[in-house]
Amino acid sequence: MLKQRKIWYDIDMFGFYKEGENVKNQLEQIHSPKDLKTYNIKQLEALAKEIRSFLLQSISQTGGHLGSNLGVVELTLALHYCFDSPKDKLIWDVGHQSYVHKIVTGRKDFFSTLRQTDGLSGFPKTVESSHDIFNTGHSSTSISAGLGLAKARDLAKKDFSVISIIGDGSLTGGMAFEALNDAGRGNTNLIVVLNDNQMSISRNVGGLSQHLSKIRTEPIYLEIKDDMEQILKKIPGIGPGLIQTMGKAKESIKYFFIPGILFEELGFTYVGPIDGHNLESLITVFKKVKNMKGPIFVHVKTIKGKGYHPAETKPCNYHGVSPFSLKTGKPIQDSKQETYSEVFGKTLVRLAHKNKKIVTITAAMPEGTGLGFFSKMYPQRFFDVGIAEQHAVTFAAGLATGGYKPVVAIYSSFLQRSYDQILHDVCLQNLPVVFAIDRAGIVGADGETHQGIFDLSYLSHIPNLALMAPKNKIEFIQMLEYAISYQGPIAIRYPRGSVSNICSTIQTPIYHGKVEYLLKGEDIGIIAIGKMVDTAWNVVEKLHKRGFHPSLINARFVSPIDEKAILQIANQNSYLFTIEDNIISGGFGMKVLEILMKYEINHISFHAFGFPKKFIEQGNCEQLYLKYGLDSDSIAREMIMRCKKNRIKGDVKNG
Amino acid sequence: MLKQRKIWYDIDMFGFYKEGENVKNQLEQIHSPKDLKTYNIKQLEALAKEIRSFLLQSISQTGGHLGSNLGVVELTLALHYCFDSPKDKLIWDVGHQSYVHKIVTGRKDFFSTLRQTDGLSGFPKTVESSHDIFNTGHSSTSISAGLGLAKARDLAKKDFSVISIIGDGSLTGGMAFEALNDAGRGNTNLIVVLNDNQMSISRNVGGLSQHLSKIRTEPIYLEIKDDMEQILKKIPGIGPGLIQTMGKAKESIKYFFIPGILFEELGFTYVGPIDGHNLESLITVFKKVKNMKGPIFVHVKTIKGKGYHPAETKPCNYHGVSPFSLKTGKPIQDSKQETYSEVFGKTLVRLAHKNKKIVTITAAMPEGTGLGFFSKMYPQRFFDVGIAEQHAVTFAAGLATGGYKPVVAIYSSFLQRSYDQILHDVCLQNLPVVFAIDRAGIVGADGETHQGIFDLSYLSHIPNLALMAPKNKIEFIQMLEYAISYQGPIAIRYPRGSVSNICSTIQTPIYHGKVEYLLKGEDIGIIAIGKMVDTAWNVVEKLHKRGFHPSLINARFVSPIDEKAILQIANQNSYLFTIEDNIISGGFGMKVLEILMKYEINHISFHAFGFPKKFIEQGNCEQLYLKYGLDSDSIAREMIMRCKKNRIKGDVKNG
Repeated sequence: MLKQRKIWYDIDMFGFYKEGENVKNQLEQIHSPKDLKTYNIKQLEALAKEIRSFLLQSISQTGGHLGSNLGVVELTLALHYCFDSPKDKLIWDVGHQSYVHKIVTGRKDFFSTLRQTDGLSGFPKTVESSHDIFNTGHSSTSISAGLGLAKARDLAKKDFSVISIIGDGSLTGGMAFEALNDAGRGNTNLIVVLNDNQMSISRNVGGLSQHLSKIRTEPIYLEIKDDMEQILKKIPGIGPGLIQTMGKAKESIKYFFIPGILFEELGFTYVGPIDGHNLESLITVFKKVKNMKGPIFVHVKTIKGKGYHPAETKPCNYHGVSPFSLKTGKPIQDSKQETYSEVFGKTLVRLAHKNKKIVTITAAMPEGTGLGFFSKMYPQRFFDVGIAEQHAVTFAAGLATGGYKPVVAIYSSFLQRSYDQILHDVCLQNLPVVFAIDRAGIVGADGETHQGIFDLSYLSHIPNLALMAPKNKIEFIQMLEYAISYQGPIAIRYPRGSVSNICSTIQTPIYHGKVEYLLKGEDIGIIAIGKMVDTAWNVVEKLHKRGFHPSLINARFVSPIDEKAILQIANQNSYLFTIEDNIISGGFGMKVLEILMKYEINHISFHAFGFPKKFIEQGNCEQLYLKYGLDSDSIAREMIMRCKKNRIKGDVKNG
Repeated sequence: MLKQRKIWYDIDMFGFYKEGENVKNQLEQIHSPKDLKTYNIKQLEALAKEIRSFLLQSISQTGGHLGSNLGVVELTLALHYCFDSPKDKLIWDVGHQSYVHKIVTGRKDFFSTLRQTDGLSGFPKTVESSHDIFNTGHSSTSISAGLGLAKARDLAKKDFSVISIIGDGSLTGGMAFEALNDAGRGNTNLIVVLNDNQMSISRNVGGLSQHLSKIRTEPIYLEIKDDMEQILKKIPGIGPGLIQTMGKAKESIKYFFIPGILFEELGFTYVGPIDGHNLESLITVFKKVKNMKGPIFVHVKTIKGKGYHPAETKPCNYHGVSPFSLKTGKPIQDSKQETYSEVFGKTLVRLAHKNKKIVTITAAMPEGTGLGFFSKMYPQRFFDVGIAEQHAVTFAAGLATGGYKPVVAIYSSFLQRSYDQILHDVCLQNLPVVFAIDRAGIVGADGETHQGIFDLSYLSHIPNLALMAPKNKIEFIQMLEYAISYQGPIAIRYPRGSVSNICSTIQTPIYHGKVEYLLKGEDIGIIAIGKMVDTAWNVVEKLHKRGFHPSLINARFVSPIDEKAILQIANQNSYLFTIEDNIISGGFGMKVLEILMKYEINHISFHAFGFPKKFIEQGNCEQLYLKYGLDSDSIAREMIMRCKKNRIKGDVKNG
């Protein structure tokens, strides 16, 4: 629970920090959206202010997504004011902007546990509340889900509204377009709310005033439209004949008034743009929209970080935050440790200086992937394609075909979107594309949707794709250099957070598909991959204390796998263990096991350590490793148990 | 080589079959696009006629994609006439419409081998010709690849045109939109040619005449545009002030003339629509377009099956054809055998009659997936979302959330597009969506891009997803019934082509995650999955003749896997073999091996039969099984060899 504090944090009218002024505690009265219904605009505005204070107080302590939630306070209140959740269905695209929704649907008191083990999720979760109708996490899914729900409603002859709330970033994702295209063709009632926080989705959207938006939804607009048609017919050089032939006069006039013609063309009725921080406008529009038929597209303009000056001015820095000081806006624990993303960015800049063929591609994550510096150094060779992982990969295939060396940097769980493109466009043609897969393994607080625990399974069976994971910073740099020089598709997966410096004194060159031998022991062979070499090192230390002396091998490559080394290790030992931070199913261990099968090695006792075939919940990373028996203590214990058991078995057999 | 025939087939002016009139053999003179350059329009028209005759003659003998190629004869000639391939790059989306391109780039004489083992591919292949710049097969990739190539060209300061030719169907695929959105933002020269064969991509595209298209590219249009602005300013009620404020006058006028406003809004210069069978228009436009700057969108209207009456009137029947009679338009060997797709369609219709919650979803494949009948019986409960596999799956998730039982029917290789949606939107929420995965395993003639040999690998590691494969028709029906009753995500994968009726007398009910025991033997256990049970049955017969008496088990489920059964089989036998028509890596056999590891079973000799980790080329299915040692003879031989070898080993050990 959130520690009760006497002093409330507040922000002044300019969005700066102010201490000691306790805002009127209306928020305590809100237990469900129903409690909002009797409020007037002034009360809602006061509530919005209070929610911002709460968000700042709470997120500054727990960390979480700040900017996007500060931006949707009024939007969320207006939606809950005009619609009746959970009867009406609100679907939050991505879902990191659902905090205000959670606050007004009875979950305020759980915010002290936000994104923690067994705590409140940072994303909508159907198990948390009946107001969360659909789980989200990855981008661009809300319109598809909303259309499905709307079609189900119509088939069941039920009556409620379905509202998909999607950001302008998410709208660049192809599946959002697939859904708009599908929804726009029919007459199904569906409301898509575009939460446009100033980053235009395309150069032609935006630009008309709130006034025009009102005309659009007021009946008076339709009258003007009819008049206009008459007027246009009288223009010399056009005349009624031509207009009739072309049959486009009405649409032409519509275009004159509507910035969202793209959405109109797709079959939506466009409404907007609306000031997303003006509760009166929002409520006026949503009340009208609620009774409109067919697919409706409501364009709402919001400001990311609204109300908190540091977040408004530097929205990138306040998208997702660690605990920070409200006064200074600075993180409380400023990590000085270098991250893999930073090393990636710096190394690419250095390599790109020498090799003019290197180009980099990100899907809307220049900062997150560490490519910020690169983008400034080599703006011509840096491509941010938006949230468009599929296009990113095939675009890279095109660049490779054109003789360049593209490095595609995408997080492990988001790269799942590109499975087909990696296989069909890159690997089938054996094109030299480098995949830099950040956030592989457990990511922690973001939970199920963001854990990068599937990549070894979905990538390791793809023909032609080389797949590596580094144990530490130096090896990561070596692998990047190796990948750049490699003449085929190659992927490096590396974890979130700070680099490891384990075994930094040992530095052996990278050879294609070859392991690295770290410790020579006897009877037990341990092959660990990537981040888990660190854990394995600790396991070995623990085993030493118990009188076991395993060999330790750093796998380096999952594909191609080092058959010769595995064969050798298997022949020299009685026990073979693999350790990975991926699900066991289809992962690294199973590739090792495949080699044991291939060479008909039956004498060895083999066990693969990794995650079970399940979605891994949010939580502190260390606690999650502990829970799933992947900390060094648990692994060491399990190994000893297995060795002892087999020895007894062996003794019985031989005795 | 194509058998030389004295009699040429021809088509009369109405597209009907005509025999005996040998058209003038200009085609023999065309060895490369250069040979076209000196032709005048009349000669090109004659050549087009001759190419149609050739296509009809050739494809009616070999089978292949007919309608789409008849539709692009003039378009392809015009492109090769105006551009200089391979210096200029032509990228064919999907690529089944590249036959004419292949004919004029020196591959005419190989058409007798089309889609056969070691023969000409039905899709662009970089290994075949320098004129094939990028391999395609799956839809909607050409703009991404084209943009990548264009950016590479600009970085290298080279000068050539990049032309992506995409169908209106492919344009509904999300990644095409991602690419349009990215390309439209910049100034990179890229030409996208929309091959619009009458199926509108959205209701607002199309509708203006060729005349307007000419105005669009002629300078005179720009003059009119300026005039128009002046005129519009004088309209009462608008006035210069308002126009200035809104700054939309120009665009409004543009909209008045241009049907492709959607593409203009995305940043493209729209040109069209052009009659795709009028060589003069096409050449006029392409010559102009070649020198235009920035991203250009050329809208070409074509008729699928153009010139052959049966194909024009029934384009669906002539998209992909088996060898057929030109005279009647009917297949030469009309297969009377029932296919899995047909059984799927019929069963769904029957089940949907009883269960009103059943809805079906296809991504632009109503006929291919066997849902044609369903769509007529239950139009309200049938959803064709277009080529949009990602949306299809999450839309299904929405329908399931709304209380319906969606059945998503997508081919194995195309479902690769939905990997993330299956995992993140369906399985993470444990939603009861049924995946009907057609064309699993080897599909044959379509080759590398279409083989369904990865699905067991990319689906079997996804948590919560049940995964089945039927051995025969009856079991397929049982599985469909089971899947409908199942309260979670579940997939059935089944092969292309006619159903098997193997073991139809044995009919045991489906139990969740349980195998079916077919034959009780000794010492050797064989577990086969799906179609391969048929093969396994033949293997057993062959082994019987050699004195081996294996047990035969039908796996039924890949997930959840029948641990108990595997344990039992392993304990009762000395040899355990699995057989699957998937790659071994990450497939069914590896899941069985995982269980052997889990229970520390070391005494057994295990081997998994399946495809190696490589892309499997086009060819006759039987020949491919033979080539990869997956026919019953090869498998039986390998099993006997393994058993003998191990017996000798065992004898040596024990002796």
